[in-house]
Amino acid sequence: MDEPSLEEALDRTSVNVPAPAPPAGPPRGHARVQDEDYASRSSEPDPEDPKLARLIADVRDYQLTHGSLLKLVRYVTPTQTSAASVNVSLYPTPFPGKFYRGAVALQHSMNQLYVRVANDEDWLYSVLGPQIQGDPEGLTSSLWDVHVKCREAGVVQDVGCGVFRSDYMLHAEDEEAALSGGGMITLKQVEMNHLSVAGAYHADNVAGMHRYLLQKRIAERTEDPMELRRLLPNTNTASLVTGLTRAHRVYREQESPHDREGPSCILMVVQPFNFNIADERPIEHGLWDEDVPCYRCEWRSVLMQCRLADGERKLYFRPEGSGTEFEVSVTYYRAGYDPREYADNNGRETRVLLEMSRAIKCPDILTHLATFKSVQQALAEPDVAEGFLAGHTTEQQQSAVRGTFMHILPLDTSPAGMEARRIAADLELSDAYVLKPNLEGGGHNIYRDDIPGFLANVGEERWHEYILMKMITPPTSTAGMLLTAEEGLYHGDVVSELGVLGFVMWKRPRGSAGKICGKGKDVRPDVEILENETVGWTFKTKPRDVDDMSVVKGYGCFDCPLLS
Amino acid sequence: MDEPSLEEALDRTSVNVPAPAPPAGPPRGHARVQDEDYASRSSEPDPEDPKLARLIADVRDYQLTHGSLLKLVRYVTPTQTSAASVNVSLYPTPFPGKFYRGAVALQHSMNQLYVRVANDEDWLYSVLGPQIQGDPEGLTSSLWDVHVKCREAGVVQDVGCGVFRSDYMLHAEDEEAALSGGGMITLKQVEMNHLSVAGAYHADNVAGMHRYLLQKRIAERTEDPMELRRLLPNTNTASLVTGLTRAHRVYREQESPHDREGPSCILMVVQPFNFNIADERPIEHGLWDEDVPCYRCEWRSVLMQCRLADGERKLYFRPEGSGTEFEVSVTYYRAGYDPREYADNNGRETRVLLEMSRAIKCPDILTHLATFKSVQQALAEPDVAEGFLAGHTTEQQQSAVRGTFMHILPLDTSPAGMEARRIAADLELSDAYVLKPNLEGGGHNIYRDDIPGFLANVGEERWHEYILMKMITPPTSTAGMLLTAEEGLYHGDVVSELGVLGFVMWKRPRGSAGKICGKGKDVRPDVEILENETVGWTFKTKPRDVDDMSVVKGYGCFDCPLLS
Repeated sequence: MDEPSLEEALDRTSVNVPAPAPPAGPPRGHARVQDEDYASRSSEPDPEDPKLARLIADVRDYQLTHGSLLKLVRYVTPTQTSAASVNVSLYPTPFPGKFYRGAVALQHSMNQLYVRVANDEDWLYSVLGPQIQGDPEGLTSSLWDVHVKCREAGVVQDVGCGVFRSDYMLHAEDEEAALSGGGMITLKQVEMNHLSVAGAYHADNVAGMHRYLLQKRIAERTEDPMELRRLLPNTNTASLVTGLTRAHRVYREQESPHDREGPSCILMVVQPFNFNIADERPIEHGLWDEDVPCYRCEWRSVLMQCRLADGERKLYFRPEGSGTEFEVSVTYYRAGYDPREYADNNGRETRVLLEMSRAIKCPDILTHLATFKSVQQALAEPDVAEGFLAGHTTEQQQSAVRGTFMHILPLDTSPAGMEARRIAADLELSDAYVLKPNLEGGGHNIYRDDIPGFLANVGEERWHEYILMKMITPPTSTAGMLLTAEEGLYHGDVVSELGVLGFVMWKRPRGSAGKICGKGKDVRPDVEILENETVGWTFKTKPRDVDDMSVVKGYGCFDCPLLS
Repeated sequence: MDEPSLEEALDRTSVNVPAPAPPAGPPRGHARVQDEDYASRSSEPDPEDPKLARLIADVRDYQLTHGSLLKLVRYVTPTQTSAASVNVSLYPTPFPGKFYRGAVALQHSMNQLYVRVANDEDWLYSVLGPQIQGDPEGLTSSLWDVHVKCREAGVVQDVGCGVFRSDYMLHAEDEEAALSGGGMITLKQVEMNHLSVAGAYHADNVAGMHRYLLQKRIAERTEDPMELRRLLPNTNTASLVTGLTRAHRVYREQESPHDREGPSCILMVVQPFNFNIADERPIEHGLWDEDVPCYRCEWRSVLMQCRLADGERKLYFRPEGSGTEFEVSVTYYRAGYDPREYADNNGRETRVLLEMSRAIKCPDILTHLATFKSVQQALAEPDVAEGFLAGHTTEQQQSAVRGTFMHILPLDTSPAGMEARRIAADLELSDAYVLKPNLEGGGHNIYRDDIPGFLANVGEERWHEYILMKMITPPTSTAGMLLTAEEGLYHGDVVSELGVLGFVMWKRPRGSAGKICGKGKDVRPDVEILENETVGWTFKTKPRDVDDMSVVKGYGCFDCPLLS
């Protein structure tokens, strides 16, 4: 695979591009605002403002001494590395405490929901089948093929785990009322992420940074000491390390005492040339601090450095240049989501090798597939999510989950799909919608009145590869100051996205793993959830006029909620 | 002051250059080894060695995620900062445990010694007087003038504190025997540092890094698990934060309850354009974590941002752009040591303002002066150090301190000075010596057979501004691998320098502070030592053939001792 873009490395968003790709160039602004307007409000800070200059120096030096950096992989030499700071908000952004607490409280149910979805192969196939059949060379098909191969070989590991992140924004149904601060406000889910979830370490650091900056303002008597209570600590990295350590120990406990004598490790499968090493290395370092060996292996090197032992299908990994093989306890995926990674047979073979093994996958391939947009759309249909949650959550919890779903339509030939096609073809109606490719992760969305023209170019036979989601319209105007690498300083209205991180571990009934499960809510497979934790949060803020929350395009910034 | 060189920022070494400056160009290698030899053994790593490539990637990414970086101040824009990694050793370097423990045990006495020296004005003047009288425009004179002004105004703060670092190398008297591993080995003091002591945070990080790398080698079965016991943890930064916090509280306790209501802070006086923010910012962040406000003020801005209140001479500081003034509890100097900082009257006025105030100085100006090389030379004369230590340490401790002193001669017209002049003029005799300017800190030394030619250019009337020190000749050949920014990878023999960090706080008898004290050991001023702590270590390693331990010239590298 070629060197990924900054965005790929940092956001895990732009890589799953179905052909034809969206128009090149910067992301489109909100239809009502021209890009020129945005540019005119971004600037270098005023040299006459020494307080602002001091704030920026404090921010940049905090980032430098805490590793809130991007590795400039283009400038790496064999012996030297350079780095640049990541985009951040200069002040924490107000966010209602009740919605923050609501999102955190929801994570337990969200984790439940997606674990149960990921263990219902029949239902997943009912959702993903059309895409698999329609594009045998596509990513969904590649992943499903891998799954089928593994199922046919027989599943040898009944424990799975995952790092999940559910993203939310505040929403007011009436956009005009919202802009004047009125209307009913709700918390809406943007998407659910299961694979190579990003931002944990940056979010930890930005929490510490905003605490330090607020302490300064309080000391300078420009803010009230009680404001400190409105900031949250964050321990994503430590919690993920704890979760992965537990998964490692579960694997080790499955082994006979004799087998436990050999060296074992967690294998972090990574992309080459990753800018965003702050997402990977701190977890690796934290695991070693817990005496859990953790090695990184590049996706393209898995077939060379890993092998499956016959019989028990233990996965063995050999570090570059080492004579020692490690038995892999947990495969932690930070790669394997990019269609280009499956462009040749090596990609599929790589995933098969990893998935077929006895290692605990974080996450397994069905959990990966459960994060595709059409799954989100299907769960939003009446009673579907409730069917998965019934018996495991209260009706109140089910209702809370349901309450976060936006209106989402498939773009197929069902009645709902036909309704979606009508909206998507209409310049005026489509202005309230976003078109998303049916893949996992964010990015490469088509917004509002760009949709009709985009779909016209795609060709109707591929429309089913997209879903149409009502735009989330944040309710209030919040002023913010964002410090970005590409665009300088932005002053203006901002909106934020809250992500809640969870760690989940589950166990399938022996012998059932990956096998056919009953369809319909009465015969769901009985997955035992061993761990269901809410581990921390991420918070990103962007100019209100920009639809895309990309951190590296110069719009989205790491930030903290200032709870109200 | 202009932008300092990388070396100035990182090593605090090269700035005190008496005219004429040493020859330009790279530092001279050991007389017996040509620079070309050194260059030929520095190289980019072999791409055929995947284990080494992996090790280097592990090192560079550890540095990036832990802030072991230099800020590329030349490339800073108003909104963006870039950074590059600091030089490190790829493996910890063997160092005998008994000498490490000996150096640590010595710190208590070394702290004692220099606190008592710094509080004996008469004795200090007897040592520094010739230089003060000989060069009224020099740094020593500037500092002494500041001291006299403060003394005449009357001292209003009887508590002082300091962060000290005593540097050592292993030494074998017989250099030829030493190279073959023979001869008696002793620990010798290179120098004592009192002002803007560097390397604390880098040394903390490199300790964590080498632990992580060793854990990997142990996991890969190429090293024994018992090796972990040979590595030391390091908590310099946390300990310095604790010390400064205590000094802050001592100051606050001196105040009336009413006065304590106003905002107060520790003032870190810094140089502009500092590459090495990792030496400053983590201490600032640590203080805020302890709820102790800490602000940085650039040396050149002190007169604008600080003022002395009449009467009590409280020092007030106003952050840039802030309407709030802070009463300064502790002045922590990370600037004020560079002759260029005193080049105009503003420099002296800056130091007077800070020194004359009620703030606790870390350290005060006599403690600053006590770190000059001629003090080190004078203490090495028979019975002098013992005179300061008598009554406060055991004879055994005094003897241990004495044992670390190298043969040091003044270059004046005393009998010892005439002996030194004879050696320094002789190409053969001088080969065992280093010529050091009589200033604090390291750097700008003239080595071995360069000395006769250098002195011939200086002019005899200024020879008294130097001391002549016997070269420390490390006893064994140790193989090492150093990773440097400028020179790439160095494989070859290395030598290391161990620094032991101390934190000291003391109190003078009321009214005596800075006043004349009795000369001679029977009437030493009775300073009460409130805190005498050994807080951590630094360890730097360089190619054996290079005399200079500069980290940024591409020779010296942060490292850890591997205790034997």
